[in-house]
Amino acid sequence: MEKKYFEDYSMGEVFVSPGRTITETDIVLFSAFTGDWHELHTNVEFAAKSPFKERIAHGFLGLVVGSALIFRLGRHVLLPESFIAFYGMDSVRFVGPVKIGDTLHSEVTVTELTAKDGKRGIIGHENEIKNQRGESVIVYNTKILAGRKPSGS
Amino acid sequence: MEKKYFEDYSMGEVFVSPGRTITETDIVLFSAFTGDWHELHTNVEFAAKSPFKERIAHGFLGLVVGSALIFRLGRHVLLPESFIAFYGMDSVRFVGPVKIGDTLHSEVTVTELTAKDGKRGIIGHENEIKNQRGESVIVYNTKILAGRKPSGS
Amino acid sequence: MEKKYFEDYSMGEVFVSPGRTITETDIVLFSAFTGDWHELHTNVEFAAKSPFKERIAHGFLGLVVGSALIFRLGRHVLLPESFIAFYGMDSVRFVGPVKIGDTLHSEVTVTELTAKDGKRGIIGHENEIKNQRGESVIVYNTKILAGRKPSGS
Amino acid sequence: MEKKYFEDYSMGEVFVSPGRTITETDIVLFSAFTGDWHELHTNVEFAAKSPFKERIAHGFLGLVVGSALIFRLGRHVLLPESFIAFYGMDSVRFVGPVKIGDTLHSEVTVTELTAKDGKRGIIGHENEIKNQRGESVIVYNTKILAGRKPSGS
Amino acid sequence: MEKKYFEDYSMGEVFVSPGRTITETDIVLFSAFTGDWHELHTNVEFAAKSPFKERIAHGFLGLVVGSALIFRLGRHVLLPESFIAFYGMDSVRFVGPVKIGDTLHSEVTVTELTAKDGKRGIIGHENEIKNQRGESVIVYNTKILAGRKPSGS
Amino acid sequence: MEKKYFEDYSMGEVFVSPGRTITETDIVLFSAFTGDWHELHTNVEFAAKSPFKERIAHGFLGLVVGSALIFRLGRHVLLPESFIAFYGMDSVRFVGPVKIGDTLHSEVTVTELTAKDGKRGIIGHENEIKNQRGESVIVYNTKILAGRKPSGS
Repeated sequence: MEKKYFEDYSMGEVFVSPGRTITETDIVLFSAFTGDWHELHTNVEFAAKSPFKERIAHGFLGLVVGSALIFRLGRHVLLPESFIAFYGMDSVRFVGPVKIGDTLHSEVTVTELTAKDGKRGIIGHENEIKNQRGESVIVYNTKILAGRKPSGS
Repeated sequence: MEKKYFEDYSMGEVFVSPGRTITETDIVLFSAFTGDWHELHTNVEFAAKSPFKERIAHGFLGLVVGSALIFRLGRHVLLPESFIAFYGMDSVRFVGPVKIGDTLHSEVTVTELTAKDGKRGIIGHENEIKNQRGESVIVYNTKILAGRKPSGS
Repeated sequence: MEKKYFEDYSMGEVFVSPGRTITETDIVLFSAFTGDWHELHTNVEFAAKSPFKERIAHGFLGLVVGSALIFRLGRHVLLPESFIAFYGMDSVRFVGPVKIGDTLHSEVTVTELTAKDGKRGIIGHENEIKNQRGESVIVYNTKILAGRKPSGS
Repeated sequence: MEKKYFEDYSMGEVFVSPGRTITETDIVLFSAFTGDWHELHTNVEFAAKSPFKERIAHGFLGLVVGSALIFRLGRHVLLPESFIAFYGMDSVRFVGPVKIGDTLHSEVTVTELTAKDGKRGIIGHENEIKNQRGESVIVYNTKILAGRKPSGS
Repeated sequence: MEKKYFEDYSMGEVFVSPGRTITETDIVLFSAFTGDWHELHTNVEFAAKSPFKERIAHGFLGLVVGSALIFRLGRHVLLPESFIAFYGMDSVRFVGPVKIGDTLHSEVTVTELTAKDGKRGIIGHENEIKNQRGESVIVYNTKILAGRKPSGS
Repeated sequence: MEKKYFEDYSMGEVFVSPGRTITETDIVLFSAFTGDWHELHTNVEFAAKSPFKERIAHGFLGLVVGSALIFRLGRHVLLPESFIAFYGMDSVRFVGPVKIGDTLHSEVTVTELTAKDGKRGIIGHENEIKNQRGESVIVYNTKILAGRKPSGS
């Protein structure tokens, strides 16, 4: 498998991940790990009286599960071996609820390719986490710093 | 415990959470939950050759653990009972590594208080997740929508 | 948040926790953690022939989950910052089954306030863990040792 | 394996379990499951300033892990197939700290054998959870209701 | 409890374990632990289109859970205190699916007893993991090395 | 990503996975999940007196973690989209201990390519799970059934 560099991506290129169904187990595990047991996620009586009528997943649960799905294509696909750093996220919006039994997948589009210097380049991504009906539930933008292809290679 | 509303917050008010030490266990559990087993987090041989010289926590691990710490003050402190929705995050930046044994806490400052209408108001927060040396490791901005105090109450 | 002392509690004061629904996941996790996979909790065929007709949660599961719920009010509410030691429990009784889907909450009543010396006092609690129908499922008594308010404060 | 009844136990009989080392992982898992992240258990900086100088396990962690160890001898040893109900616990005392790396085992002594009627009998146990130095860390009394041997068998 | 040796087993002897119901939680936990989130196990949409029409457990999940069930009879029953080593497995076959809600138990038959030398003997087992309808789902052969009874004992 | 078929593999082709360090956490989690708390894996006092002088991982832990590592190259690499069934394992041998802190990776060699009929073919693999010193710790053979390339494609 040859090493992948900044130059190996193209604007508008889209990566689509496999899917994962969000289960009651996931909600319990995420509540436990983070300590965030808000009753909207973990109390069926409370949730029945909420606008959603049932327990929904934490927004951050959808974010961390959904964002990692893309790496199932193989680490090298989105995060090249020349990966240097993850800049951060902007405009993270939780645009729809994730219910127990919903199946999430991730769609990542290359939206920026900016050479930083001769050795490094910035790759920008628009990330959409979608459910089984194709509805976006979380959207956000990310940027990573990756190595550029050595000249002559 | 009386209900807390939009009006019960003031600009510049700071909330400081208790702390939680990030353990090797946390990294294994988060890798497992998300499926993100990047070797920088989970392979001691690989990590020893990285700029950090050792395994570091996932940025998202620090984010979801750190952000939930503030609720240990009691749910009502930051997320009032009149809470309606979580808007999202902006300018999420991973500004320092989280190493095994680091102890994180969260500092949240009220930076925006905008009445949306007679019944609801937007509360903006600047969030800093810091380690035991007081160094920021993750910073981000959030906004929530909360209920306004009923007139006459 | 000002420090809370022995003197800040009053006889008969009642604390009511938020609720948490007990899930199949909780039973699997508790069985795994303790190693107690008794078939009444983990084998649907076996449990169908039991007096309960279905799997029920371990008594200790209800105890450790239910007892911790009270701290969601904020650690300082029941366990003041002046907390010194937890004495133990008496008369722990498992008075009703906890089934999958039941939602537990905890009600804690201050039943004893005994000054031990000038610096420390004993606070006794009657603890009731109840389900969504208000039925007690576990009851027990506890005592903690807490610091007394410094004179002049 | 023949069925075990009330009559198959004798006063003063002692059962000794295998041991299990309490790990940092156990403390993280128990904190997560119960939601009790008290800093004495989960914050190394906080714990270093406590009387114990280091993180200690939750009392309830020691109780639920220690009490289940006895079942590793085989379920039938202590909890006979004729088991009917678990009455509860009395005089639960947390008499010593459990530190990371301590190895717990359980010693259970038969202290009561009271026939309730022709079909059922009460078996009382004194339970001691001890560490690798033989020091008791948790002690408590329990009673179970078990079936009596059918006459003629 | 007296020590059990190679000589204490007999050809054709059968050990039958208690049962454990395989839950959605088990599938999530096993996917998480191993990192094998194959959609046949974790995506309800994908699985609905598979020959099984629903999610099934990983073959290895059934193997590791099923094989451990036999130790619930008490460690000494199958794995005597004179246990020296586990040789390995042969002819591991996944002969039927394990679905959510299926209850597995293990049946182990002694199929080989070969003295290796004066101190050690090989014990061979045919292992069948079966569901609640008595159908084999996984079969495999194993061998262990155990101590022989000291002469004169 | 184009679909991969039986014909896309070649005899002797080797796939090498990324690595994962086996932690104390992994041993606790696997003990918990399977219920196999054998003291060689979970009791530091017991293990110190064993031939290994310290706790070692369960053989099955190494097997299920090691075998799944290969899928991190991307599911399609070893398990093509035309995958039909997993036959099973033969000659599974646990040839060396896995200690806490060891880093495992997997090397899989294509050792058999047999067309079963016009639509399906058997792919045989020799699997070696190795530690950070390149020592094999578990070896086994597997076979899968995969779809053949449609004629004309």
